[in-house]
Amino acid sequence: MSTHAAQRHPQPLRPLPAGRVKFTDAFWSRYRDLVREVVIPYQYEALHDRVPDAEPSHAIANFEIAAGRKQGEFHGFVFQDTDVAKWLEAVGYSLMTHPDPELERLADDVIDLIAEAQGEDGYLNTYFTIKEPDKRWTNLTDCHELYTAGHLIEAACAYYEATGKRKVLDIACRLADCIDRVFGPNEGQLRGYDGHEEIELALVKLYRATGEERYLRLAAFFVDERGREPNFLREEWEKRGRINFFLKRPAPINLEYHQAHRPVREQTDAVGHAVRAMYLYAAMADLAAENGDESLLEACRRLWRSTTRKRMYVTGGVGSTHHLEAFTTDYDLPNDTAYAESCASIGLIMFSKRMLQIEAKGEYGDVMERALYNTELAGMSQDGKRYFYVNPLEVWPEACRSNPGKHHVKPVRQRWFGCACCPPNIARLIASLGGYVYDVDAESGIVYTHLYIGGEARLNVGKEGGGHDGGTVVVRQETNYPWDGAVMLTVTPEAGGLTAFTLALRLPGWSRTSEIAVNGERIAPEVRDGYAYICRDWQPGDTVELKLDMTIRLLAARPEVRADAGRVAIQRGPLVYCLESADNPGGPLSALAIDTQTPLTATYDAQLLGGCVVIEGRAFREGARDWADALYLPLEEEDGARREEPAAFRAIPYYLWGNRGEGEMAVWVRYR
Amino acid sequence: MSTHAAQRHPQPLRPLPAGRVKFTDAFWSRYRDLVREVVIPYQYEALHDRVPDAEPSHAIANFEIAAGRKQGEFHGFVFQDTDVAKWLEAVGYSLMTHPDPELERLADDVIDLIAEAQGEDGYLNTYFTIKEPDKRWTNLTDCHELYTAGHLIEAACAYYEATGKRKVLDIACRLADCIDRVFGPNEGQLRGYDGHEEIELALVKLYRATGEERYLRLAAFFVDERGREPNFLREEWEKRGRINFFLKRPAPINLEYHQAHRPVREQTDAVGHAVRAMYLYAAMADLAAENGDESLLEACRRLWRSTTRKRMYVTGGVGSTHHLEAFTTDYDLPNDTAYAESCASIGLIMFSKRMLQIEAKGEYGDVMERALYNTELAGMSQDGKRYFYVNPLEVWPEACRSNPGKHHVKPVRQRWFGCACCPPNIARLIASLGGYVYDVDAESGIVYTHLYIGGEARLNVGKEGGGHDGGTVVVRQETNYPWDGAVMLTVTPEAGGLTAFTLALRLPGWSRTSEIAVNGERIAPEVRDGYAYICRDWQPGDTVELKLDMTIRLLAARPEVRADAGRVAIQRGPLVYCLESADNPGGPLSALAIDTQTPLTATYDAQLLGGCVVIEGRAFREGARDWADALYLPLEEEDGARREEPAAFRAIPYYLWGNRGEGEMAVWVRYR
Repeated sequence: MSTHAAQRHPQPLRPLPAGRVKFTDAFWSRYRDLVREVVIPYQYEALHDRVPDAEPSHAIANFEIAAGRKQGEFHGFVFQDTDVAKWLEAVGYSLMTHPDPELERLADDVIDLIAEAQGEDGYLNTYFTIKEPDKRWTNLTDCHELYTAGHLIEAACAYYEATGKRKVLDIACRLADCIDRVFGPNEGQLRGYDGHEEIELALVKLYRATGEERYLRLAAFFVDERGREPNFLREEWEKRGRINFFLKRPAPINLEYHQAHRPVREQTDAVGHAVRAMYLYAAMADLAAENGDESLLEACRRLWRSTTRKRMYVTGGVGSTHHLEAFTTDYDLPNDTAYAESCASIGLIMFSKRMLQIEAKGEYGDVMERALYNTELAGMSQDGKRYFYVNPLEVWPEACRSNPGKHHVKPVRQRWFGCACCPPNIARLIASLGGYVYDVDAESGIVYTHLYIGGEARLNVGKEGGGHDGGTVVVRQETNYPWDGAVMLTVTPEAGGLTAFTLALRLPGWSRTSEIAVNGERIAPEVRDGYAYICRDWQPGDTVELKLDMTIRLLAARPEVRADAGRVAIQRGPLVYCLESADNPGGPLSALAIDTQTPLTATYDAQLLGGCVVIEGRAFREGARDWADALYLPLEEEDGARREEPAAFRAIPYYLWGNRGEGEMAVWVRYR
Repeated sequence: MSTHAAQRHPQPLRPLPAGRVKFTDAFWSRYRDLVREVVIPYQYEALHDRVPDAEPSHAIANFEIAAGRKQGEFHGFVFQDTDVAKWLEAVGYSLMTHPDPELERLADDVIDLIAEAQGEDGYLNTYFTIKEPDKRWTNLTDCHELYTAGHLIEAACAYYEATGKRKVLDIACRLADCIDRVFGPNEGQLRGYDGHEEIELALVKLYRATGEERYLRLAAFFVDERGREPNFLREEWEKRGRINFFLKRPAPINLEYHQAHRPVREQTDAVGHAVRAMYLYAAMADLAAENGDESLLEACRRLWRSTTRKRMYVTGGVGSTHHLEAFTTDYDLPNDTAYAESCASIGLIMFSKRMLQIEAKGEYGDVMERALYNTELAGMSQDGKRYFYVNPLEVWPEACRSNPGKHHVKPVRQRWFGCACCPPNIARLIASLGGYVYDVDAESGIVYTHLYIGGEARLNVGKEGGGHDGGTVVVRQETNYPWDGAVMLTVTPEAGGLTAFTLALRLPGWSRTSEIAVNGERIAPEVRDGYAYICRDWQPGDTVELKLDMTIRLLAARPEVRADAGRVAIQRGPLVYCLESADNPGGPLSALAIDTQTPLTATYDAQLLGGCVVIEGRAFREGARDWADALYLPLEEEDGARREEPAAFRAIPYYLWGNRGEGEMAVWVRYR
């Protein structure tokens, strides 16, 4: 295989509808079913305040009050509406592959409710409608007004795509039209943008769903205004007496927190609130693609490098501090005080996929996979009922309770959160995962495979992009990924359609040697920047066998990452591993140093946590001596010896941690 | 030498006046002179708001307003008065060994001012006098009213002892009498105590200075009331509508923060604000001694063990979190987010010395020395003009700026602080250090030597305790400690006095083998719990040579201290060492692993930081490979090799860190 530069698509690709891919494999079908059978119904109950042990959400009640169906006070965060929107969006994706008339009826009822809560002018936000109707658009910095609108729009696009029903899309269009009247460069309009990005990528989706170019222009307006001088957020803050909405008193404004410290094209480092940053970058990539905007694309590439090469955990988590849920500085990646919010990794997955739609670079796919299989999956418990908001890489439960600097780190998943952004976000990502597996570059006649998930996809080669004649190709994947590196793809062009096209397969960066065979015969396809390109005239049933190298890897972090010095992380395939007390009793995990001279073994354990590959090996337990009650002792005992005990260790996939009660956990482990 | 149980003194010892010891050695004379020549004059200027680059203190101005000498508003913290008191206390100690009429005149003027600020009823507190005269004694939890009184009393005792002038002692007595009327178990009195302990140990000092037993009883009252139910602090908090004085709004009360969560005799763990805890424990030890209170002594021993065997940094720092400047949990000793306030180590030194006055256990002396030579000395810059409030064990300046979880950690010392508790506290400790070197158990005829500092002491063997006939003994120490482990003591009983007594020398725990010779002849004295007891009929000019083992030690922390796993701290004699970027350029300090197979060397460098012993050795710089812009790479390169570079390393004493501009620093270093 030879290696060349990245494949820039002649035309940026539009994302494929999530419904084109149906999963059939054991790994993801389970998650998809969990979302459909457990998470969506559970969250429906939670939104209706019917989960006994959880804080009430009030989200549906707020809509009912705004709709005039009942009396009452608004409760919850200013962005409480988004929990309903994210649920509806997840329902939309789920219906694409699993029609469910009963669920659709529930969703239609919710949509009716939303419609009733919408104002004559299209305005839709239960907080302002109920509580401060005269304060609309006066505190974009804090109040998430456009963010909330964005989630409603995303939900509308998904539900419309799933059902073809226009009602919710029309709600979204009226809302977007309302926003388009209020915001813009003209006299009498607000030259502003939201403190929490989200509306931008939502408007691009709405443009793609409706073809209405005003929405695309409005998205570009929001992105371009951001950080310009005079600074909108700073002026707004001055105007309201510097009052912070949440604190109800004057407080400084932090423009980096909002990525509004300078125009986006001049930004070089990933800064501020990590979820906001990721949503912004995703929208920037969308707009760079739609508008052929080269300087915006350059900014995306710079921010990508800053995020993934200097400020990302090995688990694909981003956000090094709970203070403002934010990035800090290059290589500052503390494990035990990490924030690494589930939503931020979802945002990173969204950003990665959008960059892939511009150019086929393996690193985009690698990061997408890393964030997906590790942080994002870790966010939800195996029963789908408990969630992590924060995804640390090292946990010592007693210190989390006693040391306020670690209070944000929870040793076990929580039922629901007062600020419940993560649970429905995880649900909608899993439900929409079909949209992340493939891309089709019809112009060049290339079908890209980014993720390896057993299932069947119906892909229109050419239809969306024009150029070739096109036609439908069915690509079927059979695999036991991520446990096994063998993937069998069967390619079946439908009769009368295009047969001469290229199948591009992502070769993950963690796989040192990858073998490809077509119809059983080893081939050496061209490899360009992480993708193998197999060009042929495909016959129905042609098979492509991919064998990825699942050798267990010990990863080191570059020396600037102080927190990981002298430690390794274990990775096998896309999965990062961790040690838990449950498997490694007998002392603190930090006392163990992996013996790197003894081979590690990978074994599938069908009984453990729903079945997973565990990694085992030898270790040294250091400091194994009689400490009595001494806190510090000479390293060498009086006889000159250093005591240590041999020990076995066992690691499990990181995403499965915290499913067996409370205990220590560590991703980065010392080695010898 | 044989080893026996600790020596419990038949009668607890009273502390010796600091003025009995005159330092002549290079190491401490320099600090003493710095305090006298630089710190006391500098702080005098600071208290008068005449230091150009520093925040104004307002402390003297507040007294002038309270005294009616001028008009104006109170400024500063509620406990601003204590900065004046701590300055006056340091002046007192300084005058004991270095009479200075000009300084005494300045102090007398300040005392005149204090006298004018005192109320008719003895009340003295500029905050309440100026700002809230009707709110006296209504918020003991937050307002430091008795704490402030305590510092004034401590200053008065020191100044009276130094000069024999009663004016300030009379002020203190009137203040104590006022407090004694307000607080107590009787009808109409407050059954309360201060949120910040300090008054208790001050009242014991006042009792010892005046012989007035009411002051001792009042101290015992405050200690015994603490944490009893119904809880005074909680009731006071309820009474004022749960308003927190500093936040000006309702806030929860944290009884552990004030060590008021249960009666002190039932407390087992060192909890809450570390300075408060230390001041309480010091007072408890005082009262256990004065009252022969065995259950209080047991509580002291328990809290000693909790503090020093589970919650103390190797530098003698205490307080693991900046949140409330507090203890957290056993073995939670993070290096880079440590608090380890200078004042808390001063409190630990005070607690240690008081325990030594009850029983001669080497560990009390060892901890006292550890806190003194490391954290406490680190608190002040080499020029005496800059201070650390927080004493971290690991610093990465860029992360301190960018990561809010580390904002309390300053990479260089600061000029003065808004809350300037530490600078004058360091000054008064250094100025009073003469009082920490010896104890005399006249009952048993034993002179205890706790610290090794060149100088001359005039000790009354027997006079204070009764029992023997007594008389004065001059003990002269000559030593180049802490750089050298050789100490020459010359013992000269004055004519006509006691000659048959025991000289007890502390054998520090870090010294594995200690040699003792009397008049040039090796002896093998009895050793009991860290002290060697040399009993003889002393002739004028008898010499005792002590040779301590100054071998460089690599210390390990017990495995439960997660932060120190796989790392060692370097210690030589009483000094803990650290690495700084200034000596170890070329990459992050965390990339270095000490090569423990190569001997370390100790060399005196007269040019470095005023002269110090540096420790040098070999290290491995790990991760030395071409990382390009990768963040994570397999530990083994494709050829199976692990790249590392040999490197030299150099360590300097921890107390000297941060005197050469900004850079990284680390106490705990990885090893191989």
